Amino acid sequence: MKLYDLELSGNCYKVRLFAALAQVPLDVVAVDFLGGAHKQPPVTDLNPWGELPILVDGDVVLRDSQAILAYLALEYAEPGWFARDAAGMAEVVQWLSTAANEVQNGPAAARLVDKFGYTIDKADTLRRSARILPLIEAHLAAHQWLALGRPSIADCAVFPYVALAPEGGISLSDFPNTRQWLERVKALPHFLAMPGV
Amino acid sequence: MKLYDLELSGNCYKVRLFAALAQVPLDVVAVDFLGGAHKQPPVTDLNPWGELPILVDGDVVLRDSQAILAYLALEYAEPGWFARDAAGMAEVVQWLSTAANEVQNGPAAARLVDKFGYTIDKADTLRRSARILPLIEAHLAAHQWLALGRPSIADCAVFPYVALAPEGGISLSDFPNTRQWLERVKALPHFLAMPGV
Repeated sequence: MKLYDLELSGNCYKVRLFAALAQVPLDVVAVDFLGGAHKQPPVTDLNPWGELPILVDGDVVLRDSQAILAYLALEYAEPGWFARDAAGMAEVVQWLSTAANEVQNGPAAARLVDKFGYTIDKADTLRRSARILPLIEAHLAAHQWLALGRPSIADCAVFPYVALAPEGGISLSDFPNTRQWLERVKALPHFLAMPGV
Repeated sequence: MKLYDLELSGNCYKVRLFAALAQVPLDVVAVDFLGGAHKQPPVTDLNPWGELPILVDGDVVLRDSQAILAYLALEYAEPGWFARDAAGMAEVVQWLSTAANEVQNGPAAARLVDKFGYTIDKADTLRRSARILPLIEAHLAAHQWLALGRPSIADCAVFPYVALAPEGGISLSDFPNTRQWLERVKALPHFLAMPGV
């Protein structure tokens, strides 16, 4: 099973992190992102969207880090990392949406500006971060984990770009519950770091 | 089972549309959005994020339209609307992420500017739309439905804000496969419209 990967991408790191925590073996293939390999064949034959990560497991080819987390959890991991009942699955999917939208366009996008020079409106990324981080903080005031009362792919989807927020100039000093949750994730068995985390 | 709803919200419409197609009975509760009822108790007791829709089914309380689609499909609908296997579920989750991010911040946000006067950067919504709509168009050149080779919650998640794109000043005239897909959705048994669709 191959993961087409970029080490500095938080979206790729979501997958590497979960695979490490759940002890799912991955063959990590580094893609020459700076050389634009993700925007050309053969990578675009796998993902026409020109984005990483991409997972290839036999006939299964997946773009989107959230979808890859769901796949790996359902196919290869201990059941506790996701859920099989409708209410539990939906509780997790809420956070997959949050990762795909609010976190991606907030702290993740702020980091793209500061660290990689993307021409995104930084003020917009800060406004979005200023909305989502307090909502996560309030949730974590009453919960140890984002969903299901245990570590799950919800945590893996949200953790990377919250942990990397300081690389986008966003301080987490006002979010003590969030910082404690980051430490809980880091203390999980088989936790895997990335540069900046 | 109660859906806290705003008629003109495409996110709420996702849920009403799917419930109609799958023949799942919902008790629709109109929320006084213009009066700000979604930003105050008792609505914020259900969803501290201050957003609609919200689904309440006994002890299950869900924000996020994608999560609500997943819940209704798994708990109440014929199995064909979602999947139970890892590869099928992940294929659908890809499109739930697309609905939550690219479609929400593209055509949906453009409509918020034009129709409701939101102070969002219109040019940014148009740039995002100009990226995502051709990707959807290319996918639909080779597929009748977004996922699984059949109508699913993937279609319900993406349909509303693509169908409403003209309300954000975005023409679909260059996207014939997309327009044919919209017509296929509209031709499904028990299809439900909303103003602008």
